[in-house]
Amino acid sequence: MYGALDIGGTKIAGAVVDEEGHVLVRAERPTPALGAASTVMAAVTGVLDELTAHPSWSSVSCLGIGSAGPVDTGAGRVSPVNIPAWRDFPLVDQVAAHPGLPDGVRPVLIGDGVAMTAAEHWTGAARGAENALCMVVSTGVGGGLVLNGRLHTGTTGNAGHIGHISVDLDGEPCPCGSRGCVELLASGTAIARRALAAGWLPPSGSAPTAASVAASAQEGNPAALAVFDRAAQALAASIAATATLVEIDQVVIGGGVAHSGDVLFAPLRRHVKTYAALGFTHHLVVTPSRLAADAGLIGAAAAAAATLRAGASTPPELLSTAL
Amino acid sequence: MYGALDIGGTKIAGAVVDEEGHVLVRAERPTPALGAASTVMAAVTGVLDELTAHPSWSSVSCLGIGSAGPVDTGAGRVSPVNIPAWRDFPLVDQVAAHPGLPDGVRPVLIGDGVAMTAAEHWTGAARGAENALCMVVSTGVGGGLVLNGRLHTGTTGNAGHIGHISVDLDGEPCPCGSRGCVELLASGTAIARRALAAGWLPPSGSAPTAASVAASAQEGNPAALAVFDRAAQALAASIAATATLVEIDQVVIGGGVAHSGDVLFAPLRRHVKTYAALGFTHHLVVTPSRLAADAGLIGAAAAAAATLRAGASTPPELLSTAL
Repeated sequence: MYGALDIGGTKIAGAVVDEEGHVLVRAERPTPALGAASTVMAAVTGVLDELTAHPSWSSVSCLGIGSAGPVDTGAGRVSPVNIPAWRDFPLVDQVAAHPGLPDGVRPVLIGDGVAMTAAEHWTGAARGAENALCMVVSTGVGGGLVLNGRLHTGTTGNAGHIGHISVDLDGEPCPCGSRGCVELLASGTAIARRALAAGWLPPSGSAPTAASVAASAQEGNPAALAVFDRAAQALAASIAATATLVEIDQVVIGGGVAHSGDVLFAPLRRHVKTYAALGFTHHLVVTPSRLAADAGLIGAAAAAAATLRAGASTPPELLSTAL
Repeated sequence: MYGALDIGGTKIAGAVVDEEGHVLVRAERPTPALGAASTVMAAVTGVLDELTAHPSWSSVSCLGIGSAGPVDTGAGRVSPVNIPAWRDFPLVDQVAAHPGLPDGVRPVLIGDGVAMTAAEHWTGAARGAENALCMVVSTGVGGGLVLNGRLHTGTTGNAGHIGHISVDLDGEPCPCGSRGCVELLASGTAIARRALAAGWLPPSGSAPTAASVAASAQEGNPAALAVFDRAAQALAASIAATATLVEIDQVVIGGGVAHSGDVLFAPLRRHVKTYAALGFTHHLVVTPSRLAADAGLIGAAAAAAATLRAGASTPPELLSTAL
């Protein structure tokens, strides 16, 4: 069995994952994202307390941590954009100090985009792919790359940060410091914000979320449709850029916004045809994720197992998910 | 010794390259780019006639071909954007049929961006780099990637086509079919065209080239400076996108436009700081190429030698330049 933690800006989840990639036990806390560093860590400890108390924990041989980025996998530190109190936070050391961890088990840290990609490559929609981009489109936009049949994690574990590439060089300033980032047009947060700015109103009683914008779009609301079309355009430009730079055969899209179905995927596939113009990108296939909300946990488990199998203590730059 | 051909939209060059990466013999013809397929091939044959007649040719053990892309390295075919008569042109078969080729030597095809990258990684500014982007900014904009210490050629040999990623999703339509491609703002052709459109005039007697725009910029001409700044901005956005997607430590820029010196590199380094905003990209270094006009030839030779050393007939997706 493999232990897993998934640290995001909205929730902190933990799991015991079996050798086929199934989640057997799951624990979860909301992320006190704007709290002090120790408050956020207390939520992680709470999840670990619950997991390590479960009988199946005694079979756990490794522990993977997928975290919102940027991360520094070598140093075991994280600086998630949406958790301001954590800057170069020594997450691996802090988790390693939990009394429930088996002796000698050193947690393995990877970025959440790489984790999701590891999961899709291990048991999901990108299984067996040689060259693929996996994306999470939810509160933010993240991703990871499979190149030449292996996860390309990057020197510090941050490869695949596709939400922060600029597709509009004169665009809106991004909190990251750049301009025109994909995330400003295509994240769930951006979709809700942009729909409200365009005069869309959520159905009475419902919150102004990307899911309710998607519901309005499905009913033909022009503002909602336009916002989804624009999000799809930004995603398509970034997907095409990736295909043009590294050659990929497949794109897998998960995260809450991907649940919008054809409201997202129909304009996305159309825009990909425009931006992925060179012949060697024409065969690119865009598919939804198969693993839904557990991809981060399953992938963190896979990365930890693969890292140990490679005889390493931190994820190598080329990580195999063939477990 | 290694034989090499470099097929571009402006010239067709050939060389004999020694085992240290020095060009010993060189031949060149202008490319009859708008001619019939056989007319273009006749220029290649002319270069090969000259090379194979040279005494050093008897020591040649392999022949690399770097070609303007897109290419299909597996099929040995090329479709250079700027040579319209060559579409899926069987360049490897045609070159292999030349009577001067030693028995059993099958030419090895790679894209010109990958070739330039192979050269910079073998003996140039990216020597020893683990993760680097090499770019050619001349008539067009091309490039190649070193990932995890090896050339990442891509499944069909086209990885690194950075000139055709969109940095302006609502931008001008590109002949490739996409919009807002880097090449539309940053190629030598684009720099000259945009300067003329902005009211710049070349010094009397000189042609309206990127080099003369650079000369005007060095003298403080505002239109010329603005065009170079915009080109630098587009290059910076594409470089930052690459660093954010795959993690790179170094960018090497060659090609005619790179000879403009600080007129290009000063605004480029400034804009890279803006677009490469996430911490893991801050250490990125931008340097000029060391190999000038011969990089394509040296890299084609390196790729051919490395392919044979790997026991392959076409370049593997991960190609080592450790010869």
